[in-house]
Amino acid sequence: MAHIDLGQDEQVYLGIHGLIRYRPETGRPLLALNEALLRGPHPLTPGERELIAAYVSGRNECRFCQGAHSAFAAVQLDEGMPLVDQVHADLDNAPISAKLRALLHIAAAVQVSGREVTPELVATARAEGATDLEIHDTVLIAAAYCMFNRYVDGLGTLVPDDQEWYLGPAARVATQGYLPVLDR
Amino acid sequence: MAHIDLGQDEQVYLGIHGLIRYRPETGRPLLALNEALLRGPHPLTPGERELIAAYVSGRNECRFCQGAHSAFAAVQLDEGMPLVDQVHADLDNAPISAKLRALLHIAAAVQVSGREVTPELVATARAEGATDLEIHDTVLIAAAYCMFNRYVDGLGTLVPDDQEWYLGPAARVATQGYLPVLDR
Repeated sequence: MAHIDLGQDEQVYLGIHGLIRYRPETGRPLLALNEALLRGPHPLTPGERELIAAYVSGRNECRFCQGAHSAFAAVQLDEGMPLVDQVHADLDNAPISAKLRALLHIAAAVQVSGREVTPELVATARAEGATDLEIHDTVLIAAAYCMFNRYVDGLGTLVPDDQEWYLGPAARVATQGYLPVLDR
Repeated sequence: MAHIDLGQDEQVYLGIHGLIRYRPETGRPLLALNEALLRGPHPLTPGERELIAAYVSGRNECRFCQGAHSAFAAVQLDEGMPLVDQVHADLDNAPISAKLRALLHIAAAVQVSGREVTPELVATARAEGATDLEIHDTVLIAAAYCMFNRYVDGLGTLVPDDQEWYLGPAARVATQGYLPVLDR
């Protein structure tokens, strides 16, 4: 049971779904932030950006967000869930581009603290071809998931028992994006 | 110097100000989130909510956000900066209500991890009169500042040398709120 009465069926509206319905005044800007960061026009694909969100959520041990964004990444990456699992388990040996690996190292630093992002981490990403926009958005995606993870876990929301549950939201996010989530 | 080229005078647009101008697509939802959380209609005053943001920023050692939101709290609380300084230095003995102290203990837990928020911390806040909405917003303010702190520091933005600098933004936020920040 969540720490507060969300006024709805917690078994249906799991994780963040119950929270954004409970407080749409904050839910709407949170969905708009996700839409801009993870779905807007960008040199990184939606799958790559979801992978950053999933990776940070894994490092924060947020089961709901790790499950959700791993599924969202998997359905939008050609290599699917095996690649997502490899990134979670062993980033340095996962078969991804050197640029994406360098960005994920920046995201890992942000997960600890913004002050852990060193000029060396940024220079490495830049040497692998990362642009200022990609570095900016990597930092903000990682920072945003340090928020979402704390929001979902800090209010004690329920997590699905079955990883299959995430496939429904994953298909909807991949086709319709984040903005309609409040209307479902 | 920030880790990326923000395309503007960093000495003028310090901290998050340069970032939201660099990327207004994400800046607008971030400002809307702040406006809803810290300024919207609420049983906690804007000064009390700014105090939560300031306290979390202090625990994250984010100099820019701690300076900014401490000033924003101080100009909106009758007791001003001496109270804000006491909360930063010694929460358990600062002269605030038992309810606000219990909410700040929840915020401190969120700063570490969402999973640190225990049923006992929530029960204590509730026993001191905190409502579900106050508990929800405390968790989300604390989580959001774990994002903002990482965003500002993770991109290496500049911090003012002089605490007086924050008084200009503080006066504007107290009277006009967060939404016009992008238009300044």
